[in-house]
This record gives sequence, C-alpha cells and structure tokens, in this order.
Amino acid sequence: MISDGSKMTGLMLQNGKLEVQTDLHLPQPPDKEVLVKVRMAGVCETDLQLVQGYMNYEGILGHEFVGVPATGKFAGRRVAADINCCTLEHCPYCPENRHHCPRRSVIGILNRPGAFAEYLSVPEENLYVVPESISDERAVFIEPLAAAFQVLEQTDISENSHVVVLGDGRLGYLTAQVVALTGAKLLVVGKHTEKLRRFQDRKIETVSLENLERTRSSDFVIDCTGSVTGLPLALQLVRPQGTIVMKTTVAEPYQIDLSQVIIDELKVIGSRCGPFPRAIDALSKTKSK
Amino acid sequence: MISDGSKMTGLMLQNGKLEVQTDLHLPQPPDKEVLVKVRMAGVCETDLQLVQGYMNYEGILGHEFVGVPATGKFAGRRVAADINCCTLEHCPYCPENRHHCPRRSVIGILNRPGAFAEYLSVPEENLYVVPESISDERAVFIEPLAAAFQVLEQTDISENSHVVVLGDGRLGYLTAQVVALTGAKLLVVGKHTEKLRRFQDRKIETVSLENLERTRSSDFVIDCTGSVTGLPLALQLVRPQGTIVMKTTVAEPYQIDLSQVIIDELKVIGSRCGPFPRAIDALSKTKSK
Ligand SMILES: [Zn+2]
Ligand SMILES: [Zn+2]
Ligand SMILES: [Zn+2]
Ligand SMILES: [Zn+2]
Repeated sequence: MISDGSKMTGLMLQNGKLEVQTDLHLPQPPDKEVLVKVRMAGVCETDLQLVQGYMNYEGILGHEFVGVPATGKFAGRRVAADINCCTLEHCPYCPENRHHCPRRSVIGILNRPGAFAEYLSVPEENLYVVPESISDERAVFIEPLAAAFQVLEQTDISENSHVVVLGDGRLGYLTAQVVALTGAKLLVVGKHTEKLRRFQDRKIETVSLENLERTRSSDFVIDCTGSVTGLPLALQLVRPQGTIVMKTTVAEPYQIDLSQVIIDELKVIGSRCGPFPRAIDALSKTKSK
Repeated sequence: MISDGSKMTGLMLQNGKLEVQTDLHLPQPPDKEVLVKVRMAGVCETDLQLVQGYMNYEGILGHEFVGVPATGKFAGRRVAADINCCTLEHCPYCPENRHHCPRRSVIGILNRPGAFAEYLSVPEENLYVVPESISDERAVFIEPLAAAFQVLEQTDISENSHVVVLGDGRLGYLTAQVVALTGAKLLVVGKHTEKLRRFQDRKIETVSLENLERTRSSDFVIDCTGSVTGLPLALQLVRPQGTIVMKTTVAEPYQIDLSQVIIDELKVIGSRCGPFPRAIDALSKTKSK
C-alpha cells in the first residue's frame, strides 16, 4: 500500500459492505491527537459482528493495532492505543471514566475511523509505548489482552476460585491465560479439538462441550462464546451466589429464562475494555510459543 | 376452621388447581421441627405464579405467616419463619448458607407444605419470635420485608445513591421503604395512580410509567415488576457500570438484547430471601399507617 502523501488505502465498511478504498483522505489530527502510521492490525470477533450490523458502524474498521506516531511525544516509537477516546475539554467523566464516557468515540467501532488503513488519528493520551521485547505480531494482542485482564479488575478471582471459561476462540484463549495467572482452578469448555489443544499446550484443563458435566458448582463462569448459547450454559455451571461474566457481545437477542438469577442470587457482570499497562506488562514478561 | 384433632383444613394446589381440603392429615413434626398453629398468612405474587405452574409445586401453598408453636422453646409465643429449611445432620451448607442449600426445602414453594392451613411443621431453628408491638396483620409482612432488606445486604446503596424502584405492587412498596431508610435519592415507577399515592403518602417520589424520562443515570435500578417488561426498562435507566437488582421472578422467558450489559459493564444481581431479624427490628420501630 503506497499513498501519494494526501491519500491512503483502507478497508471501509459502508452500506453493509466491505471495500478496500485507495483514495481515502489522510486523517488530519485535531488538537491533542497525533497521526499514527499503522504497522500491523488484528481482526477480531467484534469486527465480524460490525460487518453484520452491530453498532450500525460505518467507516474504516480495525481497533487492535500497533503503529508509530508521526508527531508528538511518542514520535517514532511503537505504540498501542486504548480504543475509548474523549477529547472534550473538562469532560466530567474523563480521563478516569473514559471507557464509559457518554461522549466517547471508539476506534473502528463508534464515530471514529479504525486501524485497517495506512494511518489513523488517535488522541495522544490514549497511546502506550510498546517495549522492544514485544513483537508487532504480539503487540496487536495488547487491546484484547487488556480486555481479558478487565475480568480480574471486576472480580475477586483467586487461587481458591473454581473458574470455567466458555469458548475456545481467541478471547477465550486470552481470558483463560489471564485467569490462569491467579492460580485459580480453571476449566475451558470448547467445541473444537484442535483449538482446545492450544489450551492444553499451556497446561490449561479443557473439556469438549459434549463431555461437559453440568453441575452448578463453579464460582465464576466467563462467557467468551460470542453466541446466545453461552449464557444459558453458564447458568447450568455457576453455583448459587456465583458470578457469570459476560465477555462477548452477541448481535441477536436472547430468548432466556432468568429466574435462576433470582433464585440462586447470581451476579451477572458485563465486561468490556481493560487496562493497557497490565496487558503490556504481562506480554513483556511472557515468552511467545 | 375446626379440626377433629387429627385432620385439618388447608388450601391445596394440585394438578394446576386450587382446592380447599378439609380432611388433610395433621403434620407430624420430625425431630428438630415443631407443629405451628397458623394465626394469619399473606398471599403474594409468588403464590399466584406457583398456581400458574412456577416451580412445578404441588401441595399446600403459603409462605408468609405468623403462628404459634405447640411445642418447643417458643411454645405459646407468636413466631414468623424463615422459609428456607434444611434439616440434614452436619449439612456442609447450613445454617450459614441455608438460603442456598441444594438440599433445602422451602415452605409452601418447594418440597414442604405451606401455611394456608391450620397447622404446619417448621424446623425450630427457622423460627423468630414476633414482638408484641407487631400485630398479626403486620407480622405476615416479615417474610417479604426481609426479602426487601436483602437488597441492602447485597448492594452498597447509600445516601449518595440514585435508586429507581420499578413496580408499584407490594414488593415494590416494601423495597422502596427499605431503600428510603438509607437516605438514597429514590424514585418509584408504576402504572397505577392509586397505588403510587401510597408511596407519596410516605414521602417517596413517584412517576407514572408514561411520564418517565428514560435517561441512563441511575446507580441502582431494582426490578419489582414481576414482569418481563421490567428488565428492558431497567436497562434504559441504569448508568454505565451501574447495578440492576432483579427482585421478582417471572414465569415466562425473556426475549432480550443484553449487549448493553457488556458495553456498559453493568452488574445484574438476583435477590431473593433476606434477614428476618432486620425485618422484625424495622417493623417493631415503625408505626403502622
Ligand atoms: Zn477486538
Ligand atoms: Zn469524556
Ligand atoms: Zn412471598
Ligand atoms: Zn443444608
């Protein structure tokens, strides 16, 4: 992808269709934002859902990336970016509650062009330097790994906890590794033998969906299935007064009996974006496999 | 209702039908249980749902009552009873977690005859003496009032909290009064002008459903509607990272989009039975109206 200096190439979602466009305008960063040249970007389940109409997003996709700012205090260094942006002066929510600021834009998801392009504009306060020890290939996982760490920020999972992770996809894989750091007794439930093998390679216990014993005994069940089947299954596994963490959004509505939530006094917690420093720290300490 | 000493009258739910039966066997209390003569019992939404098939319960209905034990340490005194019973020797869950013991029976709801009869058998450890200052007419509310207090046990609602109670029925009425004790900023949403007036008489702010402004600004929304419309409405009122308390079971399944739970990182908490001492204490300190 070569641009003539004022035009760039990017992957647009428009009218429900994906299209590579080569004549996109180069972003003009407003005050407090910097132009970031994208080195590498990751595709995630959310991108696939956006294509299916989730959030009614139109524009350049992509929110998991590593890049290099052209200007500003991080110019020339590799950075990752928290995707929740608010550039309002004296915002009453930010920066502390930027992840939930009602005026926020979200890179590649809500009112802000994403990273499936040569360049994007990012508020400088959203940037985090990526240490040399983390390759580009791993740095694109900083954003989803931060989201996985958010589970630990919101719960008191500890080595005494029994935790089940539902889903053997990418977010399940990251979340399970994060939970494993606590020393909790961990079980991953999945449908795909070859995907479950990756967990086993990291010494994480797995079970296939058809062999799963459905006893209501887990302290925490973390739904990373991205499917409407995740929550009803979680209800079959969580103990009374236990916690279900909903980690993946689902485009369709649920058809679900929730009386068990009341009878068993369950906690159902939604979990989205997480702390970048924790993810960067973990990646810099872990060897790739 | 007069019995000949070995037979009694009671209201049975059987094959989906309610029937007054006059030749029921008098309960024979096993070890650690006592025979309680019922003085008065209350009907609640749960009873109506049981009649509609909830829990597949069959037997004598009724779980909110005041009575007098014939034997045991409380013989001759008025008592109310925690409805969650476990009489298993050395149960690993009880008495601390009796409300969630997997072996529990629940008076008039699960595997244990209820209080819509002349007598019932109750484990003595479930009984609480009702002070003289609380009339029978008010004592039948101890059980649902304890359930309302459970909301305060599970949350950190304080005078700084903005709380919305959905539903102007009996549980909404009790829950709103309990929340009001914290000094929280409280709003009750209901459909019935005459029912909402009862809240206003107690200086609780109300709004009719059609005049309700739907802004996502409440710290806590407590669903006491007993309807599948309660949870979607709660989602329209709770702030990001806020808490929805589900207080009432619903017989039908929900058809619901839960993506907001994840995006806004909401907590959804189920809430059922509560602490009897707190309810008795509150009733003994409050004048009836
Ligand atoms: Zn993603
Ligand atoms: Zn803001
Ligand atoms: Zn009741
Ligand atoms: Zn027990």
